[in-house]
Amino acid sequence: MKIALAQLNYTIGDFEANKVKIIKAINQAKSQKADLVVFSEQAISGAPAYDLLNKVSFLDLCEEALVEIASYCDGISVLVGMPAQSTNNKTISIAALIEDRKIKRYIGKKTIDSRDELCHFSPSQGCEYVKIRGVKVAVVVGKDIRSRQEYGDNADLIVNLCNSHYSRGIIERRYDLFRKISYQTGKPVIFVNSIGGNTDVIYDGSSGVFNGQGEALALLKSFEEDFCVIDMAADNQPLQIPYQDKTVNVYRAIKLGLGDFFRKNNFKTACVAASGGLDSSVVAALATEVLGPDHVKLLTMPSQFSPKHSIEDAYQLAQNLGVECFSAPINDTFMAMTRALGPIFGEQPFDITEENIQARIRATFLMALADKFGYIPLNTCNKSTNAVGYVTLYGDSVGVISIIGDLYKTEVFDLARHINRHREIIPHNIITKAPSAELKPNQKDTDILPPYDVLDAILYRMFEEGQSREEIINAGFEARDVYTTYDMVVRSEYKRDQSCPTLRLSTRTLGIDRTLPLTNRYGY
Amino acid sequence: MKIALAQLNYTIGDFEANKVKIIKAINQAKSQKADLVVFSEQAISGAPAYDLLNKVSFLDLCEEALVEIASYCDGISVLVGMPAQSTNNKTISIAALIEDRKIKRYIGKKTIDSRDELCHFSPSQGCEYVKIRGVKVAVVVGKDIRSRQEYGDNADLIVNLCNSHYSRGIIERRYDLFRKISYQTGKPVIFVNSIGGNTDVIYDGSSGVFNGQGEALALLKSFEEDFCVIDMAADNQPLQIPYQDKTVNVYRAIKLGLGDFFRKNNFKTACVAASGGLDSSVVAALATEVLGPDHVKLLTMPSQFSPKHSIEDAYQLAQNLGVECFSAPINDTFMAMTRALGPIFGEQPFDITEENIQARIRATFLMALADKFGYIPLNTCNKSTNAVGYVTLYGDSVGVISIIGDLYKTEVFDLARHINRHREIIPHNIITKAPSAELKPNQKDTDILPPYDVLDAILYRMFEEGQSREEIINAGFEARDVYTTYDMVVRSEYKRDQSCPTLRLSTRTLGIDRTLPLTNRYGY
Repeated sequence: MKIALAQLNYTIGDFEANKVKIIKAINQAKSQKADLVVFSEQAISGAPAYDLLNKVSFLDLCEEALVEIASYCDGISVLVGMPAQSTNNKTISIAALIEDRKIKRYIGKKTIDSRDELCHFSPSQGCEYVKIRGVKVAVVVGKDIRSRQEYGDNADLIVNLCNSHYSRGIIERRYDLFRKISYQTGKPVIFVNSIGGNTDVIYDGSSGVFNGQGEALALLKSFEEDFCVIDMAADNQPLQIPYQDKTVNVYRAIKLGLGDFFRKNNFKTACVAASGGLDSSVVAALATEVLGPDHVKLLTMPSQFSPKHSIEDAYQLAQNLGVECFSAPINDTFMAMTRALGPIFGEQPFDITEENIQARIRATFLMALADKFGYIPLNTCNKSTNAVGYVTLYGDSVGVISIIGDLYKTEVFDLARHINRHREIIPHNIITKAPSAELKPNQKDTDILPPYDVLDAILYRMFEEGQSREEIINAGFEARDVYTTYDMVVRSEYKRDQSCPTLRLSTRTLGIDRTLPLTNRYGY
Repeated sequence: MKIALAQLNYTIGDFEANKVKIIKAINQAKSQKADLVVFSEQAISGAPAYDLLNKVSFLDLCEEALVEIASYCDGISVLVGMPAQSTNNKTISIAALIEDRKIKRYIGKKTIDSRDELCHFSPSQGCEYVKIRGVKVAVVVGKDIRSRQEYGDNADLIVNLCNSHYSRGIIERRYDLFRKISYQTGKPVIFVNSIGGNTDVIYDGSSGVFNGQGEALALLKSFEEDFCVIDMAADNQPLQIPYQDKTVNVYRAIKLGLGDFFRKNNFKTACVAASGGLDSSVVAALATEVLGPDHVKLLTMPSQFSPKHSIEDAYQLAQNLGVECFSAPINDTFMAMTRALGPIFGEQPFDITEENIQARIRATFLMALADKFGYIPLNTCNKSTNAVGYVTLYGDSVGVISIIGDLYKTEVFDLARHINRHREIIPHNIITKAPSAELKPNQKDTDILPPYDVLDAILYRMFEEGQSREEIINAGFEARDVYTTYDMVVRSEYKRDQSCPTLRLSTRTLGIDRTLPLTNRYGY
């Protein structure tokens, strides 16, 4: 049997474009004499569609697209994923089997356990066995694949339509899982994922075929559309699974996520508040790679507390990137504001209030630039500062999307070095100087925060590994650092509650994979 | 059998305070010779606790509190709700039965279907039958009560521990449900709800006892703690179910929600941007009723576009409320900002950019006042303007909590009239003048929006009733109004995505009961 794997980039609710892509891949598979072509889960609708999944008209459009797709399926079997209404009016995720232009069977997904799906999908029957061209195939949707043993006992081939989104390390873990499944069942396993960014979610593709000995026979690209036809009888040369560099993968994930966010929303040009610091420089560099230098605008907003080198660094960055850089100094506005507030504030000393005012003036300038010319303001915060709330709400927290908000500061440094791998794009000085908010004289992030390598290690244990204060202290961290970090995280929950969408790059994206009651006496 | 109902206000994670309340009620029940005292679902932990429910240490603290509570239960049976770890390490919601100081039984909840619970609770066994003082009791947690027939067949009495939060009309619907259950089963039904605000969620209490003929024998207060003991053998005088006035209930719900948000978070003083318009006036009046005039500060921020009457109206409001009113004019700051942006903007005409700048200057002033003196800024937007995005993100959208964000504009008018029921608190002129954002000369909301009675009716059909454009047009609305409204709602999803917590007063609170993919081609 010759099987085609179609790993495509779908747009949520764009039935016309998704259908055209699917039909094109069916024709390509037919021209290459494939017996079966497999698409990913929810290919027809795009995912995650959230509340749209509970609208009958949305599900009707899926069904209509499926019917039209079926009319192209002469001489080939097709497995394609979509949401559908079950006989008891629940929304379920299914794989439709098309043969001889007819929709022969719907195979439902049983395991609904992710936060994106729990509120919108109901569990269905799970894996079913179908005969395709004489071969007994276990058709499995999504995470149902984990009940693997059973499938191998009843089928000659296991086909998994999935929709697995990127997070650091997932590609290696997914290969391991499928290697194990195929080895343990002794049956070939084919899995087809989608690719593409859909606001914060990035599907990475990395589909593949494993033989019954746990060896890879085909591996599709990561972060790109891909298509291959494999002859299960003839193609038996095992492939080496390539090494996965975390920084390279994160870099590619962000570029895909950012690019699709702009393309799928018809956005053209981004604007970035360029402080001359690391975070905004990395965001500007990534945006320029994705959108091109004509479609990125930098805005420097110097104040009395901005050291000369920061402005110079921002301009040097703009020059290296070949992008336009505007300047809007904030001092006069800051003076006007403090004068207007003077009668209310009286003799109160300069404090965090005036720091926040500066950050909010900058946000207002950035948004004004965006409003006036239709630019899309990118958020420039990282996961470390978001986590401890070292960010001004409605100040540097603003933006339409955050592209590095799920990267710890130490990972942003890694990314900066990767961006500079061929030549100096981000000025060297930006990477080496001590991070500072520059909102008062001689301010350094470490005035308040532990050094970033310590902070990031504590935060990683707290979020990604779910460790308690005591466990982290027992692992050798200073009690003072651990308690300070925990307290700052708990106190700043309300800021994250109002944050913009953040490209998901970890298994614990703040504000998405973490929901805490703002009013609670337990802390965290 | 004498049964006590304890309807209490719990704080999430405040095990000490919750435990003390519960023990006090047990002692009161004992002193009134009750055989059984019933508490609400998740009483020991408070709810909704979200991710805390998946922390073992949190569940351990629940169990410890339960053990201590049990030590007070001599001579009385107790049913009390809490989250617990099931034998297979899932978090479930249970009722613990305590008798003779011993924890005798855990009864789990089966129906997990709300968005607040789906990601955090697993379904358990459901209703169980226990003998308490010789009476066969069906103990039912939460929505499991809907499988009612079964319970009546197997028990002499049905006891439901619930945690049902307020939304418009829920009190009537809940009474109807329990009346129907008791009538259909022919068995007495006792249900105990909690009360209190927990950030955006407001439990309204309204617990009760119905006899097997569907008649109320006891009705506890709404929006207040309450306690009663009923003798099932002797107390058989049916009560009239009181009329529920929607505006009065909304008014009481907001006061409870706002008051608890401040009390449970140890907040003292609110600040409100007073424009002289309806929304901010209603927010200021409610805050003053709840927090007292010393703990509410108004801030007027006039511009060149503020008509004289608006400032006068704001000061009149402050005087009527007896609260302090500060003033920070925004003109000089606006001029400084447009000067700073001038070289970038060139000859571009005044547009929405300059309107948004004004709104964001006001937000910066309000936040500065909050930062300097530790005040809590209240959001002043309503559901109608939030829905269509007639709000400036990071401008009038700011705040720590929104108290009228789930009320349509027409409902805010109703509330204003209710606030003025005894005397003119909100100046008459504020209620009668045409709503305006006052961001450019002679601006009126109706320049952009349909009249509010039309807009609200369309939005209600769209959100609360899930109607499509076609259905609403067929109901007699102008096609142009319907399409405009739908388009504005779809286009402004990204603004609501970054909104502050909103007291939930309807079954479709924006941003909570509604999740849409920001990137999608279907619309809504």
